[in-house]
Order: sequence, then C-alpha cells, then structure tokens
Amino acid sequence: MSTDFPAKPRIAIIGAGALGCYYGARLARAGFDVHFLCRTGRAAVMAHGIRVKTPTERIHIRKPQVYATVEEIGLCDLVVVALKATANDQLPRLLPPLVGEHTLVLTLQNGLGVEEPVAEVVGGRHVLGAICYNGSYRTAPGVIVCTLPGLMMIGEFGRPVQERTRAVAALFNKAGVKTDAHENLEEQRWKKLVWNVPFNGLAIAAGGVTTNVLLADDGMRLLARRLMEELVDAAAKFGHVIPRVFVDAQFERTEKMGVYRPSSLIDFEDGRAVELEEIWGEPVRRAKSVGVPVPRLEMLYWLIKRLLAARDNRIRKR
Amino acid sequence: MSTDFPAKPRIAIIGAGALGCYYGARLARAGFDVHFLCRTGRAAVMAHGIRVKTPTERIHIRKPQVYATVEEIGLCDLVVVALKATANDQLPRLLPPLVGEHTLVLTLQNGLGVEEPVAEVVGGRHVLGAICYNGSYRTAPGVIVCTLPGLMMIGEFGRPVQERTRAVAALFNKAGVKTDAHENLEEQRWKKLVWNVPFNGLAIAAGGVTTNVLLADDGMRLLARRLMEELVDAAAKFGHVIPRVFVDAQFERTEKMGVYRPSSLIDFEDGRAVELEEIWGEPVRRAKSVGVPVPRLEMLYWLIKRLLAARDNRIRKR
Repeated sequence: MSTDFPAKPRIAIIGAGALGCYYGARLARAGFDVHFLCRTGRAAVMAHGIRVKTPTERIHIRKPQVYATVEEIGLCDLVVVALKATANDQLPRLLPPLVGEHTLVLTLQNGLGVEEPVAEVVGGRHVLGAICYNGSYRTAPGVIVCTLPGLMMIGEFGRPVQERTRAVAALFNKAGVKTDAHENLEEQRWKKLVWNVPFNGLAIAAGGVTTNVLLADDGMRLLARRLMEELVDAAAKFGHVIPRVFVDAQFERTEKMGVYRPSSLIDFEDGRAVELEEIWGEPVRRAKSVGVPVPRLEMLYWLIKRLLAARDNRIRKR
Repeated sequence: MSTDFPAKPRIAIIGAGALGCYYGARLARAGFDVHFLCRTGRAAVMAHGIRVKTPTERIHIRKPQVYATVEEIGLCDLVVVALKATANDQLPRLLPPLVGEHTLVLTLQNGLGVEEPVAEVVGGRHVLGAICYNGSYRTAPGVIVCTLPGLMMIGEFGRPVQERTRAVAALFNKAGVKTDAHENLEEQRWKKLVWNVPFNGLAIAAGGVTTNVLLADDGMRLLARRLMEELVDAAAKFGHVIPRVFVDAQFERTEKMGVYRPSSLIDFEDGRAVELEEIWGEPVRRAKSVGVPVPRLEMLYWLIKRLLAARDNRIRKR
C-alpha cells in the first residue's frame, strides 16, 4: 500500500451536489487544488461560484475550477465520489481518466455496498470510503445550506487504517472538516444505518414528515427502535458490535436536531433518486444471508420502493 | 336462549351509511318492516328515498321509514348496528330504547372486539355479529353503489349457532342477501382480517392505491402474504385454524376484483373515521397477549395511526 500521499494533492470532486460542493468548497478555501466535475448547472457555478452557508460561517469560492468532463480534469491524487449511489452506473466512464497508479478514490456515498462498485472499476486497493454525518442541501446550483457540519469518518475498503488513510483524514481536518480515520469502515457503515434506516425511512413512509414528528409519535419512536435493533442484530452476525448506548444516543441526537428533514425525504419529495438499495435493500439482503430476521426493515424497504414507484409514475404523467 | 324469532320482525337499522342502506333497502324491498335511524342527510333520504345500484339490479325504496332518534323507533325484534365501530361511544345512548327482553342486536362492524361494546350495553345474550363480505359505498345520502354483493356470515357472540341465528340468516336470505349462520363467529372474524389487514392497510400505507396496484408489486404481494401469515399464527393460538388454501384464495379473489378501492382507503381519503383499532390494533394486542410476534402487523398499525393523525391535522388546519 503506497504511503506517499502528497502534501499538495490534486483533488477531483465528482458531483457538485450538496456534499460535493460542501467538502470541495472547504478544501478549496483551505488552499487545496480542487477540480469539480459539474455537469448540470455549470454555467451558474462558473458565473457565481460556490456558496456554502453553515450555522457559523459563509464560504464563497468565487472562481472554482469547474469542468464538464473528467477528461479535462485528468489524473488526480484524490478523487472524491460525491455522486448519489443511484448514479453508480456512470463510474466506469467517469473514474478511469482520473485514476493513476497512486490515486486514492474516496466515496462519500451512504449505505452498504457502495465501495464495491468503485472497486470494480479502479481496483479495491485504491478505494477508501467516508461516512458523512453532515446535514446539507442544495438550494440552487453551487448554493449549499449546511445545517449540521457534523463529522466525517474515513476508512479503507476491507483493510485497517493505513498511513494514507490518516493523510486523507488530516487533509479534511486542515479544511475544517472534523474527520477521523476508522479501523473498520464497514462497522461504521452499519452504525450510520442505525440512524439512516429508521429516520430517513420513516420520514418517507409516514407520509413525508420531519424527525421531530417521528419522535413525538409513540408508535414511530418504538418502530424506530425496533428497526435499530434489527440492524444491531444483523451487524453482530458480521462481527460488528453496536452497543445499546449507541442506539439510545441516536434518539438524543435526533431530539437536538429539531425540525429536521432527512436527506432521503428531501430527495423523495424533490423527485430525485433515493438510495433505496444502499440504505434499505442491501442491509436486508445481508441480514438474510446470515439468517437474521429483519421483518420491519424489509417491510420498510418494500414500502419505500412502492412509494418511489408511485412518485416516479406521477412525475412521468406530468 | 329465546328461539321464538318472529316471522314478521320489527327491524331497526342504526346508521344509514353504505351497509345500513344496502341491507336495509334489501330487507324493505322484501317486505320487512324496516326502520332507519338516519341522523345526517335525513331530509334528502325522506325526499328521494334510498337507492341502491348493484352490478345486476337497481333497488329504490321510495318511502323508507326514517327517524331522527331511536326513541321514535322504539322497541324492535332485531336491531342492526350499521355504525362504524369508531362511533361505538354512542351505543349506550342509542341501543336501550330499541332493546327489550327478546330483541336481538346484530352488529355488522368490521374487525375484532366489536361485539363487546354492544354486549356491555345490552347484555351479551342479545348479541349476534355479522361479517359482511360486501363492497358498497355511499355517493350521497341514501344513494349507494354496491360493486360486490358478496355474502354475510352471521354468528352468536361467544356461543354456537342457535335456532334464532338461523332465523336471522333466513331473514337476510329472503331479502336476497346470501347469508350463512356460522358456528364460530370469532374464527370468521380472524379470517376476514386475513383480507382486511393487508389490503385495507397497505392501500393506505402504500400511499393510497387500489388493490390491483398492490397485487402488481412483488414487495407488496409478499408483504401481504407475510401479514396474512402473522394473522394465521395468532389465530391458531386462539384455536382457529385458517388453512393455507384460504390464504392463497385471498389473492385469487382479489385479482378478480380488478381496480378495487378498499373501504378503509375510501374512509381515509374522504376524511372519515377509519376502524384502526378494530382491524389493526386489536389483533396486535390479542396476538401479543398469547406471545405470537406480529412485527409487520404492528408496524402497519403504527404507520396507519401516524398517517391518520397527519390527515386529521390537515383537516383541522383547513
């Protein structure tokens, strides 16, 4: 495993959605050499730059380096995949021009099974994953509102932490993103699901509600806990121990978030792709593969799938 | 147990909704002495009568005997409770003026635990229950469209069939309602839930869809089957054997119904009360009381409860 991650890396951000712009803008403001692949809304981003509003500051990258194709960007030291997992069919076309012998590819995608499609294209030894506890949404091309800067957990795909993992974590920390290198990326992914599965899922299945509405409803609270317990049981079979106190903490954390609209609900209501398979489908399949019953998780998966199909039908009919 | 049910009974129909009008109109047309309690839309019903359109015939009762209060109706031989279970708090006021020593009270309500509130008011020995496999809806006061005449199953509350049970069944058969007297009313109620729980429930939880949409979706089909299996397991603990072939038949039957909008969905979308506790809540409680896990049924109960709360909130805000 190469350990010589450069001090001044050439960085590509693939996807200029909320997370791509948020992390890219922070890296650019810290003086790093950041190149954005931005296919929709590029003219606006070139004209007005990238603006990020956080609870404590405003970042404005006036002249971001913005590209229409990956060929124009060319070889990089670090490629940040900030596309939705639902766009992963584009990876075989997008990644090769950016990736050389020593390039690291860091996927920010949510859920389980998101490193595998990257590894298939570039080879597993190049791949890192990040779990982003961050609440951001895009209001217009290049215009991001971050309600919750949160933190990032970086890990290697199927390996413990390397020198380079710490180097990438240090890079983000320098850019003002609180980042840790974690020994077990997969375990962190299961832990993130403990929040994402119930809160993103029930926000959609309960008719489009914010997390405070879920927390105020006894049935939804209990259901969220049951869903978490199913995930904890499944994760345990894969050797990941998620303590009870972690489950409890999700409720406390969510209480503090107030009127919070989970990202999958925003995607659902705005007619965008939802990470159905990564957040709900893949954990169901993995749990079943090791004989752990996850009836509520599976039911939630099926319900969201159906609601999405109906939504897409309505969109087509417009 | 009294066996002398009169050949020409005095009949009260409490509630002039879809089922009350449907069965009342059939009985009236067959020449029986039928008295309708009709509180909302009474003027329209008095002016235009009751009209029932079935797939094969049109029934018009030009001058139904319609009343604003049960006191005006007075003592009857048979009282048919055609109110929603959600209106059962009115029973202590509505039933006593109608019920004497030999009066039978037949509740048409859906779900589990619907005989108990009647029995509390009039005494269990007066009580019969009916399970109505009938698809009818009201388009205006006294105007009923019946898409599925179906059949009725009558049974005694906590007793096997009596002479009088057969007499009441015969009465409905004479009125053109295919009716059987069943030894075990409770078992029939569980069997009806095998259809009602998944199809009424998922029609609501899946965003307001007709049964053909549920049947065309692999996840919803499988989920419907799992919900049915949970009910079968719970019913078995109470000594009710629901065979696999009965479960299979529900799918075949529903296929034949085409684009069918279950009654709970109609109630949900039209802003009316939904029999949440009788169809979903009570089976959950009974299953848990005998240690049968019903995770999907409980999840469906919680989801519908939340969706109903949100709907009622929207209605209040209008």
